[in-house]
Amino acid sequence: MNTIFSDRIADVPRSFIREILKVSLDRSVISFAGGLPNRDLFPAEEIKRATAKVFEIYGNDIFQYSNSEGDLRLRQYIARRYREKKNLVVDPENILITNGAQQGLDLIGKTLLNEGEGVIIEEPGYLGAIQAFSIFRPKFLPVTVSEDGVDLAELKGIVSLETAKLMYTVPNFQNPSGITYTEHNRREIADILAGTNTFLIEDDPYGELRFSGTPKTPFAALMPERTLLLGSFSKIVVPGFRVGWIVAPAPVFNKLLVAKQASDLHTCHFTQYIIHQYLLDNDIDAHIARIVAAYGGQCRRMLSCIDTYFPAEVTSTRPEGGMFLWGRLPGGMTSLDLFNLAVKEKVIFVPGDPFYTTGVKSPAFRLNFSCVDEATIETGIERLGKAIKLLGKEG
Amino acid sequence: MNTIFSDRIADVPRSFIREILKVSLDRSVISFAGGLPNRDLFPAEEIKRATAKVFEIYGNDIFQYSNSEGDLRLRQYIARRYREKKNLVVDPENILITNGAQQGLDLIGKTLLNEGEGVIIEEPGYLGAIQAFSIFRPKFLPVTVSEDGVDLAELKGIVSLETAKLMYTVPNFQNPSGITYTEHNRREIADILAGTNTFLIEDDPYGELRFSGTPKTPFAALMPERTLLLGSFSKIVVPGFRVGWIVAPAPVFNKLLVAKQASDLHTCHFTQYIIHQYLLDNDIDAHIARIVAAYGGQCRRMLSCIDTYFPAEVTSTRPEGGMFLWGRLPGGMTSLDLFNLAVKEKVIFVPGDPFYTTGVKSPAFRLNFSCVDEATIETGIERLGKAIKLLGKEG
Repeated sequence: MNTIFSDRIADVPRSFIREILKVSLDRSVISFAGGLPNRDLFPAEEIKRATAKVFEIYGNDIFQYSNSEGDLRLRQYIARRYREKKNLVVDPENILITNGAQQGLDLIGKTLLNEGEGVIIEEPGYLGAIQAFSIFRPKFLPVTVSEDGVDLAELKGIVSLETAKLMYTVPNFQNPSGITYTEHNRREIADILAGTNTFLIEDDPYGELRFSGTPKTPFAALMPERTLLLGSFSKIVVPGFRVGWIVAPAPVFNKLLVAKQASDLHTCHFTQYIIHQYLLDNDIDAHIARIVAAYGGQCRRMLSCIDTYFPAEVTSTRPEGGMFLWGRLPGGMTSLDLFNLAVKEKVIFVPGDPFYTTGVKSPAFRLNFSCVDEATIETGIERLGKAIKLLGKEG
Repeated sequence: MNTIFSDRIADVPRSFIREILKVSLDRSVISFAGGLPNRDLFPAEEIKRATAKVFEIYGNDIFQYSNSEGDLRLRQYIARRYREKKNLVVDPENILITNGAQQGLDLIGKTLLNEGEGVIIEEPGYLGAIQAFSIFRPKFLPVTVSEDGVDLAELKGIVSLETAKLMYTVPNFQNPSGITYTEHNRREIADILAGTNTFLIEDDPYGELRFSGTPKTPFAALMPERTLLLGSFSKIVVPGFRVGWIVAPAPVFNKLLVAKQASDLHTCHFTQYIIHQYLLDNDIDAHIARIVAAYGGQCRRMLSCIDTYFPAEVTSTRPEGGMFLWGRLPGGMTSLDLFNLAVKEKVIFVPGDPFYTTGVKSPAFRLNFSCVDEATIETGIERLGKAIKLLGKEG
């Protein structure tokens, strides 16, 4: 049956993460593999009330087809919040509501990528972005991400040799590494890209989940004409409603809108209305503060357990926010080998391999701390430390 | 700014229908231009109750990320209904939930179409399909649709000369023409395609909205291994929730699932749960009967008004279901010219042009009868008849 399919679909990597999630159905297994927000922190009662109000206020309008741009009041709310929280001026007319930020990636690929065109991508990088862009068969141009952001010398080298249509970044609390681009790194990137026609994708699902350090300047402020800013309510309200957005300069916005119409006409506006009503009637900052307090505590606990239970040669990033940290095994060990031992110890995580476009046997691995309480983190990291030591003996 | 975009996005026609909808904001204009189900028939109270029950039963699960396939119970319901209503055996595992059937077209394009590959498309055909496939830059192979279905001699000719990856059909109450493929036409098409590798898309959003005549055999029964069957709750429950589906043979299903993950992870499952609960707790057949009674009455009224107010040379299809009928102006008149006169008479419709991939000045036009009550239909068709007579005098 192989030849029946498009070439593009053969290029899309399977979601290893989804495969792993199957293992995690065993309740005795502690999972640091997930990429989910903590369900205990969903504002369930508030959303229930918002839903009742939406039914009451809007009648049958909420059931009909709607516009492809998304609900204007929600787009105005998003623009207002950017101004108040980040001092970022965005016109609501430049905000397109999407089915989560993931769809933003698909629409950007549709609108901008010809086959074989360059996409600069973080390594390690977000698997969902690799999947979304693979559909359009680009040439991936990997650039190494470390504690400060992307490797600037590497980026300069890429820009001098290649023409990239897009550069994909998660500058705040990156998935998978948990790192945040420094102020300096951001400004240097903006400088390096200034002489090019490259659009920078600033994917910022975790930006509001900062538990230490200070906020950095968004790329959308540094290079507004060349930035496509993606946002989402998935990590600060609920992910299941599938409401995210793209902020794009007008010429790109207009084409994204055509792509949106062709893709699915419009995002469910019932859930858009509910989220908007929820935002109007509740203190979202207080809610985010609760999430940040929980995730911050869990991250600190995970880091202190790593200090206690992991061999000293295992290194880890120290995130200032978000949901993930990134460990690295010493000389010669691979995270896939560790995974196989860890499953036997009843703890799982995501090995580094799928976060690379270049097919590596990665020594690194991603740990999620948002979904696991502190006591379970202690037990899980202890188990993982045991697996690492077993791997060391094997090797 | 032209060169920044992908070649594919330049190929996507703007939705003329959406442009027209702007004119229809003037309340004094009678619109036969819409493609919407009648909002007065939405089961609002029942959905409200179903929503309350979903909150009560499922707790925070409805807010979390979910699987890309869609809710299994909803897929089982859909499979059961196919068996009971159409004697069609479908495995729930072969049903993928999508954001309306429109997303089904996007996912099929992603999964199957390489640039330049052939897509046999009805002329006139559904604009949303033309848009969705244009993204993948196929070679459109138009085949004429008339009262009985597609022109079989033309289809044979195409199949003998070209290799088509897909054939797109709306065999029941087609959009825009309102026609239904006869039993003979379907069997002949299945025979003609039997020697090819072409997948037939059976897009069936209106199939349950039959107000006269007898149901025909679905392509999914005639050629199950080569049919991709699209369905939707948009026309029988509500469109705003964006819940549709694809039924596909297993090898295609698996690739569609990869495309779905890459496109937006999953369809909002809150609305999937609500629709499922609504279906469990209510008599959907009785609800569909109410829709059918209304649309049938409106269609009959429109046809009798056409007989009364249009010049005898204007012909029209006589739909057995659905939401549209298709008129045709006599010698030399174009529907775009009629549109400009009709706007002045305060009545609008969709000219035929956008339903063709070949850039014609069409004498045909689409009239929607689902959204307009019978008295308004009378007034609107009288106005349109006046505009046609004015056009006749001009010409």
